[in-house]
Amino acid sequence: MSKLSEFELIESYFRDLNQSRSDVLLRQGDDCAVVKTTPGTHIAVTTDTMVSGVHFDEKVPPRALGHKLVAVNLSDLAAMGAEPAWLSLAITLPEVDQEWLKEFAAGMHELAGYYHCELIGGDTTRGPLTLTLTAHGLLPEGQRLTRHNARPGDWIFVSGNLGDAAAALAGQQGELSLSSFVQHKLNERLFYPTPRIALGQALRGIATSCIDISDGLAADLSHILTRSKVGARIFLHQLPYSEALKSLTVEQQRHYALHGGDDYELCFTVPEEMRGSLETSLAHSSVKLACIGQIDRSSGLRFFDHDKEVASSNTGYQHFNS
Amino acid sequence: MSKLSEFELIESYFRDLNQSRSDVLLRQGDDCAVVKTTPGTHIAVTTDTMVSGVHFDEKVPPRALGHKLVAVNLSDLAAMGAEPAWLSLAITLPEVDQEWLKEFAAGMHELAGYYHCELIGGDTTRGPLTLTLTAHGLLPEGQRLTRHNARPGDWIFVSGNLGDAAAALAGQQGELSLSSFVQHKLNERLFYPTPRIALGQALRGIATSCIDISDGLAADLSHILTRSKVGARIFLHQLPYSEALKSLTVEQQRHYALHGGDDYELCFTVPEEMRGSLETSLAHSSVKLACIGQIDRSSGLRFFDHDKEVASSNTGYQHFNS
Repeated sequence: MSKLSEFELIESYFRDLNQSRSDVLLRQGDDCAVVKTTPGTHIAVTTDTMVSGVHFDEKVPPRALGHKLVAVNLSDLAAMGAEPAWLSLAITLPEVDQEWLKEFAAGMHELAGYYHCELIGGDTTRGPLTLTLTAHGLLPEGQRLTRHNARPGDWIFVSGNLGDAAAALAGQQGELSLSSFVQHKLNERLFYPTPRIALGQALRGIATSCIDISDGLAADLSHILTRSKVGARIFLHQLPYSEALKSLTVEQQRHYALHGGDDYELCFTVPEEMRGSLETSLAHSSVKLACIGQIDRSSGLRFFDHDKEVASSNTGYQHFNS
Repeated sequence: MSKLSEFELIESYFRDLNQSRSDVLLRQGDDCAVVKTTPGTHIAVTTDTMVSGVHFDEKVPPRALGHKLVAVNLSDLAAMGAEPAWLSLAITLPEVDQEWLKEFAAGMHELAGYYHCELIGGDTTRGPLTLTLTAHGLLPEGQRLTRHNARPGDWIFVSGNLGDAAAALAGQQGELSLSSFVQHKLNERLFYPTPRIALGQALRGIATSCIDISDGLAADLSHILTRSKVGARIFLHQLPYSEALKSLTVEQQRHYALHGGDDYELCFTVPEEMRGSLETSLAHSSVKLACIGQIDRSSGLRFFDHDKEVASSNTGYQHFNS
């Protein structure tokens, strides 16, 4: 198969990802894509790479890979309060496997299409399987959510449930013994995470800081604390778990929720006086929120089980630095 | 070394690539970078990946890799007439080699800094060495250079010299026997190509089509012909060669110029009535241009040596489809 026709073949799989957005002036097929911007709108840009053998193995279905590649990038846009717009895909493949490509593209399309996000270009190369996506989102001027404005007294919220993806991985790797039903339920969250796009946009003007949880709640919340120069108390008994995760011991649940990673939920801070606005803003939303702590003037994280402070060694927190 | 400090280490090498552009509102360290756009300005986006063992081998100095990764992306921006602005780097590394990173970042910085182009974000992952850059350029509304507007009668120009990079590679791989002086001269063009940024911008409103030559003149010009639904005559005796390439046979020179690739010169078309404007626009520029053919109403490429048509089999053209 010549280089040219191979290329055309690959591009044909991604054609469904052209959503005909009116702000895309030139698509794949020229030296660059060209997009139009709107006055008063800023652009949020994020890039994430997934490497075979590092971020996933051959057990992950290609459809899940396509979904997850889009999800992890859109999750970064969500954490800024941005509206997804344009994608650029760099895909390095060891060989052209038509079935694989079809499934991978379908996984990308399902999520990108839902958010009216268009693939505007990219590059296809031969080599060890590596997937890089750059996602662009639109932000009304001055409305971005960042990591550095959390204030003492702000309440800390997380969306959805925590720990499922990390427990799924531990089950796959034999570190946890799980029933096939529970393993299957947890795999769903590992393979098909949900970027919290609508929530991110609803938090504009309400949250004082926001981050998406990709490395575990403790690590990601710590980024907010460091950048905002504050500390936090975490209410361990308030951490939200799925029914599947509740089949584990409480200690395991807390461990995966705090240090697991791959959740792609949002963690954000809201001042007391904005809690009413938060409820109003999300009245018609089905996303579950849990208030899991409070920002204070200390430094770093402290953990509480109801009113009792718990040494961080009991939470597995020390694992993070090992 | 923990994951976090390794990350910080890597980011420290790329800090020089923060050029403090006033349109970058948020840099590395949050979920996304945020950039500001100007009304009336469009954005050109391009992505190129370089894979170890495919696009380069361990003989290529890391400084050259950094230079070339920026150059191939800026070359795509040049071909649109865009002004380089923001870069996003996805780098997959098998290990943290400080010396390698320092040289690679320096190579990127030399070129990106010259064009006041800022690294706004990216991702660092572990795995087989793979380098992906997404470059964003600014374009005045309606001024982009594309591939689809070449018209019969337009003259075909190329910048600089052709064939050096491909001959350098052939010399390295033992397909050509070159003196060490010539090999060294040709290597310079393979390792450190020049993106024709100023030329691209000067061609706005003058060229009817433009492309950068990455796969060889014949292949890349063919993209213009296909998209513009025209044909072309190429004047073989007008192809521009470096002094180093002139040490090869005429047939070899033509072969590498037509089919070599990796030149990163611009190939563009200019109507007869715009040739004066072209000269005016480039009066103070040092870039060398050669008029190497003319667009006609035929289909595909025909080759002429002075007034005599040459069968394409004599030019090596058939190699392209093999």
